Amino acid sequence: MARSLRHRLFGLRELVDELAFRAPARLAVSVFACVVGLFAALLMVPFATADGEGARFVDALFTAVSAVCVTGLVVQDTGTYWSLYGQIVILTGIKVGGFGIMTVASLLGMIVSRKIGLTQKLLTASETKTSRLGDVGSLVRVIIVTATTLELSIALLIFPRLVVIEDNVGTAAWHALFYGISAFNNAGFVPTPEGLMPHVGDWALLLPIALGVFIGALGFPVILNMQRALPRPGHRWRNWTKRLSLHSKLTLVTSGVLFVVGALLLLVLEWSNPDTFGPLSFGDKLLASVFAGIMPRSGGFSTVDVGAMTQSSWLIQDALMFVGGGSASTAGGIKVTTLAVMLLAIMAEARGDRDIEAFGRRIPRDVLRLSIAVVFTGASIVLVSCVALLEITELQLSVVLFEVLSAFATVGLSTGITQGLPDSGKYVLALLMFVGRTGAVTVVAVLALRDRRRIVRFPEERPIIG
Amino acid sequence: MARSLRHRLFGLRELVDELAFRAPARLAVSVFACVVGLFAALLMVPFATADGEGARFVDALFTAVSAVCVTGLVVQDTGTYWSLYGQIVILTGIKVGGFGIMTVASLLGMIVSRKIGLTQKLLTASETKTSRLGDVGSLVRVIIVTATTLELSIALLIFPRLVVIEDNVGTAAWHALFYGISAFNNAGFVPTPEGLMPHVGDWALLLPIALGVFIGALGFPVILNMQRALPRPGHRWRNWTKRLSLHSKLTLVTSGVLFVVGALLLLVLEWSNPDTFGPLSFGDKLLASVFAGIMPRSGGFSTVDVGAMTQSSWLIQDALMFVGGGSASTAGGIKVTTLAVMLLAIMAEARGDRDIEAFGRRIPRDVLRLSIAVVFTGASIVLVSCVALLEITELQLSVVLFEVLSAFATVGLSTGITQGLPDSGKYVLALLMFVGRTGAVTVVAVLALRDRRRIVRFPEERPIIG
Ligand SMILES: [K+]
Ligand SMILES: [K+]
Repeated sequence: MARSLRHRLFGLRELVDELAFRAPARLAVSVFACVVGLFAALLMVPFATADGEGARFVDALFTAVSAVCVTGLVVQDTGTYWSLYGQIVILTGIKVGGFGIMTVASLLGMIVSRKIGLTQKLLTASETKTSRLGDVGSLVRVIIVTATTLELSIALLIFPRLVVIEDNVGTAAWHALFYGISAFNNAGFVPTPEGLMPHVGDWALLLPIALGVFIGALGFPVILNMQRALPRPGHRWRNWTKRLSLHSKLTLVTSGVLFVVGALLLLVLEWSNPDTFGPLSFGDKLLASVFAGIMPRSGGFSTVDVGAMTQSSWLIQDALMFVGGGSASTAGGIKVTTLAVMLLAIMAEARGDRDIEAFGRRIPRDVLRLSIAVVFTGASIVLVSCVALLEITELQLSVVLFEVLSAFATVGLSTGITQGLPDSGKYVLALLMFVGRTGAVTVVAVLALRDRRRIVRFPEERPIIG
Repeated sequence: MARSLRHRLFGLRELVDELAFRAPARLAVSVFACVVGLFAALLMVPFATADGEGARFVDALFTAVSAVCVTGLVVQDTGTYWSLYGQIVILTGIKVGGFGIMTVASLLGMIVSRKIGLTQKLLTASETKTSRLGDVGSLVRVIIVTATTLELSIALLIFPRLVVIEDNVGTAAWHALFYGISAFNNAGFVPTPEGLMPHVGDWALLLPIALGVFIGALGFPVILNMQRALPRPGHRWRNWTKRLSLHSKLTLVTSGVLFVVGALLLLVLEWSNPDTFGPLSFGDKLLASVFAGIMPRSGGFSTVDVGAMTQSSWLIQDALMFVGGGSASTAGGIKVTTLAVMLLAIMAEARGDRDIEAFGRRIPRDVLRLSIAVVFTGASIVLVSCVALLEITELQLSVVLFEVLSAFATVGLSTGITQGLPDSGKYVLALLMFVGRTGAVTVVAVLALRDRRRIVRFPEERPIIG
């Protein structure tokens, strides 16, 4: 009996195995759809809302998609509309969604990059058909442990400040946990109606959250790679960056540059806006711009009213959101390495170089085609969604484009139109969040996981795209 | 004496020769700037305006840039603000600008493509340092003759209709010539305040104009190639398309697809708009959509009020304008072959092909990098210009984006904001038209005209990018 059960379980494992390696895109999308459906159902029960009357289907579905896809766009205020049960469901959705995204994308990304040691093992296992799940299991454990550690670290760092703010240890602990999970998973959900806006100058609260968002948006392969590259206590720090993979270097540098450029531009453009940075002191302006510079990639928290920003600031954030964060992270968008590869290609073209190079490594040429596919697909989806929302509503392009990019790149920043959308508009955004989330994984899986004749040349390294 | 003059002229020829082949981008930009300056000066004389008081500098400069860059955006109505002299200056500016663009771009394009027979001669000449200008001269002659023939053909085709409309043979002839030159050069200038709007259902007037715009937007290499590929009288038509170059095939197919998609989408989106297609009969709706489907690439004429269209229609036209027309044509944008190469690259990636292929030809891989450079540069220019105009004015993104793309791609369609812009805004658009016009040539010249080691493989063909 025990043997039969084990045998049947092994059969199931084999089936999942087969699916994962034969049609990984279809499997990922199906699993995601099921998880979204489950959480929508959990949010449909009457006591999920604070008034005990239950949510409408469209609101439950939208919230479930937003949570599982770690977007953070909301049609109903998280802290007041949903009950504590509802909020726990949302937070669980974020945790499950974020974990799922990191796991699936890490697996795919590692298979694509064929770089990180774990993947070598995975690939070997897949070839010899033995103990593959064991290695997947170890990856899953590493991700769970790392993610939870980082989430709890953020929560612990902001807990003292929240005790002061809330004047209640229980509420402070709950909010600290909520922000910790929401920040590391780049979810952008907040447990109170006013969110972080009252704390625009609060370095002790905002810096840990911003740092958590930044690290979360780097992506799991980068976090793991950095963990391994950092010297053990007592060892030298010299040259530790040389132990980083090309993918990690590209992600770190591009993320850093986008952060600095975004923060500076928003600082200048909003400097004298009376509804945003205008009334703030110099220090608070600086913190607000640092915070706002990190959030489009794709944390989605805000300390000032995004809806009151200028159209120029929206446009800058549109561009930043489209780029998004790191591959195999909970951030969305076309991903920073995709942008980096395209820029490197342009530089190579300008210099007349035959190969695309970065950090002493040559980037394979087919990576460029993959980048173009990701960018073009993304731009097309955004264009079609904008047309759809413009036809459904009477809204202006500036706000529609912002909300569409926020949904597509699962950012969660909002000019405030989402809550007022008609149901059809909510469905469009929900679909967009789902497509934006699973799309990159699907495109990469479909395009990159094929056997392809390769010219053997050394040394070569493949960054993860999409 | 005659000998000395000839010697000095030969010296000048040598100098231009050297510049053209050493720094073609700088030469092209400088010549363009000088021509624009000249026409601005010609429009500054008092009797250039109808009231005889002379134009303001900003208006003269804007109009000169718009004419020489064959854009068609206007800050002052062409038919009423400018005198007949002013209108002749504008038309001459179009003719000179259109000719200059076609000549320079054809030369560069042919050198890049290394395909068309004429270029082989040119290249051989450049290597042996003999009689190069003779061959450039023959190219110039072919372009002048072909362009003038097509312009006069359009003028002759619409002349009978204009006689009926204007009830005055002189005015009709002038307007026919104006429309002929304006259409073939994709300039979009109209000789009357109401333009073509009163004639929205006039097939006899609009079809020749639309056809002229379409052919002009294909680009001179395609026109020349088609001319040569078409069978002589008495010969068979079978397989004549096989004599077309890859560049011609890509340009024709992509232009055709963009036209059909654009016309259909605009037909659907504007079908019931009471301020545009709504009041029209079915036939007139069809003609209006056919006309509007051709104009974003980049004729710039309009038979309905573009400012009254929906934001969705603007967005569709934004995308079409960004793509623009054929390489080495008077059309702007990133060019249809650039789009085609990127789509083919995505298809190749999806199929897992090693090479990018079309019509039985392999497209060299470095063409893809050139395409990316053109698209990325274009998108960045558009983004920066939008931010600038949003900061200068209080206008909405939807109209600003439309006008920016219209200027960048030298289309000339307008939602109506250009005439009301402050001077700083006019300068931004004027600069954008100039950059949009010379930018592609510059990028291609800088990036593509370098010597580069090439892998020898056959058969290979290089479409013109940018
Ligand atoms: K988010
Ligand atoms: K034009």
